[in-house]
Amino acid sequence: MSVLQLGVIGTSSISDVFVQAALETKAYELKAVYSRSLEKAKSFGEPYHAKEAIVDFDAFINHKELDVLYIASPNGLHFEQTIAGLNAGKHIIVEKPAFTNPDQWEEASQLAEAKGVVLVEAARHIHEDNFKKVKEEIQSLDQIQGATLTYMKYSSRYDLVLQGEEPNIFSTKFAGGALMDLGIYTLYAAVSWFGEPEEAHYFAQKVRTGVDGKGTAILRYPDYDVTLLFGKTATSLLPSEIYSIDKTLRVNAVVGIAKLEEINTRDASVKEVPIHPAAENTLYEEARVFAALINTFDEKDTQEKLKEWTALGKAVNRTLFKLRKSADLSFNDGQ
Amino acid sequence: MSVLQLGVIGTSSISDVFVQAALETKAYELKAVYSRSLEKAKSFGEPYHAKEAIVDFDAFINHKELDVLYIASPNGLHFEQTIAGLNAGKHIIVEKPAFTNPDQWEEASQLAEAKGVVLVEAARHIHEDNFKKVKEEIQSLDQIQGATLTYMKYSSRYDLVLQGEEPNIFSTKFAGGALMDLGIYTLYAAVSWFGEPEEAHYFAQKVRTGVDGKGTAILRYPDYDVTLLFGKTATSLLPSEIYSIDKTLRVNAVVGIAKLEEINTRDASVKEVPIHPAAENTLYEEARVFAALINTFDEKDTQEKLKEWTALGKAVNRTLFKLRKSADLSFNDGQ
Repeated sequence: MSVLQLGVIGTSSISDVFVQAALETKAYELKAVYSRSLEKAKSFGEPYHAKEAIVDFDAFINHKELDVLYIASPNGLHFEQTIAGLNAGKHIIVEKPAFTNPDQWEEASQLAEAKGVVLVEAARHIHEDNFKKVKEEIQSLDQIQGATLTYMKYSSRYDLVLQGEEPNIFSTKFAGGALMDLGIYTLYAAVSWFGEPEEAHYFAQKVRTGVDGKGTAILRYPDYDVTLLFGKTATSLLPSEIYSIDKTLRVNAVVGIAKLEEINTRDASVKEVPIHPAAENTLYEEARVFAALINTFDEKDTQEKLKEWTALGKAVNRTLFKLRKSADLSFNDGQ
Repeated sequence: MSVLQLGVIGTSSISDVFVQAALETKAYELKAVYSRSLEKAKSFGEPYHAKEAIVDFDAFINHKELDVLYIASPNGLHFEQTIAGLNAGKHIIVEKPAFTNPDQWEEASQLAEAKGVVLVEAARHIHEDNFKKVKEEIQSLDQIQGATLTYMKYSSRYDLVLQGEEPNIFSTKFAGGALMDLGIYTLYAAVSWFGEPEEAHYFAQKVRTGVDGKGTAILRYPDYDVTLLFGKTATSLLPSEIYSIDKTLRVNAVVGIAKLEEINTRDASVKEVPIHPAAENTLYEEARVFAALINTFDEKDTQEKLKEWTALGKAVNRTLFKLRKSADLSFNDGQ
């Protein structure tokens, strides 16, 4: 199996972490970096010995030697770039949130199928061993009573908002905000662990630029609710908890899970549950798994995994869309 | 000033704690215990050298030597017992939730005023030094971003519900459930610290008996939301957090606050804030303060405090009622 030739769109810090992880797996080489600024494309690619820095989007997307594109541009650009990449016959790894509404997911996944290529949303945590370990623990719980999942971290770019600017991550034009940026991690955890909820409600605290800076979402299941707490205008150190009548599972976080504990509901005693060591680069597993998908594309197992992740991605996206609608969040996607 | 002659309605564990606290203040003597069971009334009163055990409600309520009644019967009985006590000219301390709807509060407080007696809801935590200390800290925050306040503790009486029984605390007949029993503590904290919210939404997980076993409430203020997590069918060890853009305040609990910390939003570093030692009996302060109210009833300061607490109790009750309505919780109060 040959080494995958990787093209990268977007030069922010997440791209750095992904490229490091990808190179570490030895399954990829960084072939080309796209940016509207040649300077940025060059300086991003240099430490990774990228072969090319490209400013012409069409030339980049149709580059004959590129196998797979990693798209980590502002959220609002993901869809059109994905469609362009798929049309050029490339495998696509698109950062979360891949898309801002279910129609986009549907169109993109149909196109990927027609073209016979991989399309995956980079929700890195669902590929972590410990994320799967927590899922197993949840499945053994007696009478689940819901969960509280938290990801709330102050963004230094909110300083800019307070100074009157509009950075992409806080802009409706680029589908920014707390739900799209951090809430989605808690949502992926909820949908992976408990399935797609019947109802979804979002109480958003909007900031000056029109996006949500912080909020609480309630996912309603037949027998319990899952509460999601997330934000970019404040910091929380709350762990996440999953409740049952016998015990509460406590994890330090929903991304990069490093600690799992069981709390006895009766006496509140706490017991540590042995888990895997936390990954050093939380994108390593994801990069490894995606390369395997591409390299074994025709195998039955691969097709099943791809179907499973596409179904999960779509379920998350449907719920994301319900949450967005319930809080009246408008982006530039016509919905 | 003479020692107040105390009559107690209700012989559950909270009455024990209150009577211990009351006697400790040396401002009260336990004069009489009312119960429908003479046995229970006697065995409750004995360790406190109660003078009388009474099974006739009218005789108890009209007892000439009783100054003040502490009412800790099932929630659904508070209102009629309070009205009876006020009509007999007694001062009334009624356990939280004092009443199940705003009409009841209004009627009771008007009667108390007409009779010239004290009527207070026993929301013990608002009288704690540390509760007031947290309020001061909140008032010095820059750009509050909301809060997450939690009180969730598995009740062994839920075992009975699962076995097909209907204990009072899980019965609609007695206005039981998680909101009325534990949620109200978080609600008192929210209304004391942030004022009365503009909107209140409650997502309740109902149990077999029709009451809420657990739930999430969202209180909406002009600039932020406060999320309340509470329940009796699961246990949470989450601390409570109050958010601002510079720092997050973390308290170990909203009742019996023993630890206060400041989290730096930028680097997530944690610093302990010195506070008062936690009270040994969390009802001591409340019992002391209520005796002082009664003994200085005619003083201007007392009247002001009483007005303030009545206003707070009514604001909490209005919000409680909104939450109850939003989750469609029916009790036997015609509303």
